[in-house]
Amino acid sequence: MSNQPLLIDTDVHNGIKSPRDLLPYLSKVWHSQWLASGTGLGQPYYSPVGVLRQDAVPDDGSTSGSDPHFMVKDHVERFGFDYIVLTGQSILELSLHPDIDYANAVVSAYNDYLIEQWLTVDKRFKAAMVINHSDPHHAVKEIERIGLHPDIVEVIMCSAANKLYGHRVYHPIYEACANMNLPIAIHPGTEGRGQTGAPTASGYPSRYMEWHNILPTNYMAHVNSLVCEGVFEKFPELKVVAIEGGIAWLTHLMWRMDKNYKALRDTTPWLRKMPSDYIREHVFLTTQPIEEPENPQHLVDIIKMCRAESQILFSSDYPHWDFDHPKLALRSFPKDLKQAIMGDNAAKLYGLTRV
Amino acid sequence: MSNQPLLIDTDVHNGIKSPRDLLPYLSKVWHSQWLASGTGLGQPYYSPVGVLRQDAVPDDGSTSGSDPHFMVKDHVERFGFDYIVLTGQSILELSLHPDIDYANAVVSAYNDYLIEQWLTVDKRFKAAMVINHSDPHHAVKEIERIGLHPDIVEVIMCSAANKLYGHRVYHPIYEACANMNLPIAIHPGTEGRGQTGAPTASGYPSRYMEWHNILPTNYMAHVNSLVCEGVFEKFPELKVVAIEGGIAWLTHLMWRMDKNYKALRDTTPWLRKMPSDYIREHVFLTTQPIEEPENPQHLVDIIKMCRAESQILFSSDYPHWDFDHPKLALRSFPKDLKQAIMGDNAAKLYGLTRV
Repeated sequence: MSNQPLLIDTDVHNGIKSPRDLLPYLSKVWHSQWLASGTGLGQPYYSPVGVLRQDAVPDDGSTSGSDPHFMVKDHVERFGFDYIVLTGQSILELSLHPDIDYANAVVSAYNDYLIEQWLTVDKRFKAAMVINHSDPHHAVKEIERIGLHPDIVEVIMCSAANKLYGHRVYHPIYEACANMNLPIAIHPGTEGRGQTGAPTASGYPSRYMEWHNILPTNYMAHVNSLVCEGVFEKFPELKVVAIEGGIAWLTHLMWRMDKNYKALRDTTPWLRKMPSDYIREHVFLTTQPIEEPENPQHLVDIIKMCRAESQILFSSDYPHWDFDHPKLALRSFPKDLKQAIMGDNAAKLYGLTRV
Repeated sequence: MSNQPLLIDTDVHNGIKSPRDLLPYLSKVWHSQWLASGTGLGQPYYSPVGVLRQDAVPDDGSTSGSDPHFMVKDHVERFGFDYIVLTGQSILELSLHPDIDYANAVVSAYNDYLIEQWLTVDKRFKAAMVINHSDPHHAVKEIERIGLHPDIVEVIMCSAANKLYGHRVYHPIYEACANMNLPIAIHPGTEGRGQTGAPTASGYPSRYMEWHNILPTNYMAHVNSLVCEGVFEKFPELKVVAIEGGIAWLTHLMWRMDKNYKALRDTTPWLRKMPSDYIREHVFLTTQPIEEPENPQHLVDIIKMCRAESQILFSSDYPHWDFDHPKLALRSFPKDLKQAIMGDNAAKLYGLTRV
């Protein structure tokens, strides 16, 4: 066993090369809908640089992120990752589809496809199984169906929803995750799209950049809701991974929640600790897109202010446009913190060890 | 002229003692509606501690904040304020009323009442005039009607809206403010109420504390929108005051906006500076409810990281429940920064000098 620190990427997007690749896993009744309309979710926020890295196109010219063998070469081996966690792509959007039967069917088909077509390719591939959060009953069944697969390390859902994630309607999902020792992860990008409301309290941003800038506000709302609704008292084993939602807002949220709790805790008698304590014990944040202050030390300072050193997980977001380079993203971080973020924290969270 | 530093409170809530007090300023056609339904806006988020300080009830037993003479004694003279800025109370909600004629009429009546019943009482009273942001045309007329009154130092509107504040529909308001050298202020508390959508991208918080905790996310969205939509290029003189919305989120927002701008600035060709530069030059934040980290130095560190020393304005929020004590709120701040925040920054912004 090497003494080298573990290197784990907690957010790598695997795509489906062709919609036809899902057909063997999908009941025939849904084939024409899947081929014709896919996730059915429009995207009014257009990025002029695209959402996929053009230098990550596989050798056969297919979509970036859609070829497991090319991903091994282009990402896993290039940087020497011990593990990467596959988090899917637009499949996550299906939680916002109006037809929950369709969404459930495609999500299950994707999970089977993921296990057969990706997790068999390389031992370094681990994966987040996808659920449809709009049908918690089916989501629980799906978690029970495949959650014990040895390479499934997490359950993932999109961060946009009609109800905040502390709401009681989701608790069966958390119970299943806690029972099976699977963290629940959220991923941004669906805010304001499909069957949800506006992405802010005051309506819709006008353009992609403006929309992308404020996606973390939805994360703040979810973390706040999870804590205030007592989810972590009800499910003390539950871990939540906030993927791709930023880090530096944590100071503000912790301080504001703790201050208000001191005055208003009568209204949440189920809480027994300060809100920031629940966040520190249960919430993990991935790094990409890592905030880039003019003075890089400032981000380290923020993490230390929050005492969040063990909550931060490295992610590259490969092969997306705003990919963070594993050698560069944390170059100014002190060695211990860097090692924790680059692998140790994720190894502990997901129960991963050097093979 | 004394050498004592100026002491200015930028958020003091004056209330209306009896709805009847507004009648002399309101056309008779609206009297019965005003007396029967007031602002017409419900509030599902109930605070068990109330929203008004019970120790700020005037000598005659009327509502806290509704008696100008008692306010002078209980707040202005108790702490030795040189100036306080009166920001109104529930009158701000009228921007969310479905009937813009009614809202316009009551807002104008309030402004006249404010000038006659409050600004005549004490030279230390300055005030924010209220507008109905749902009718920008009327708002401009109202600003032109009374904005030059020597004791009107600001224009205020509630922070909840159907469109983010960078949207073009509001630009005539900003033009009027810039022309008359009046900052435009926003105040929270209407998020998710009345004629707006949910207060988060994922629906409604369940309780007052949970709702109150995430009000600043709407501020982040507005500041982002104002910058991205080019409001500060179009109106280089415009200043925006974000009242009661927190401070420590500024690091995150500045860093995320600057990072995205580097990649996506093609979509906002009207911007000529980094987003954080616009924020530093045009956006001011009031202190209350000031974030209270375990180590108070951390908030100072955050302000310095943002180089926002000249953007922070002291506010107490008198007579609201979460009032910040002028002698205590900044007690750990270094002397220079404290003096800037307690008065100098506001004096410069509002053009106030020692009398």
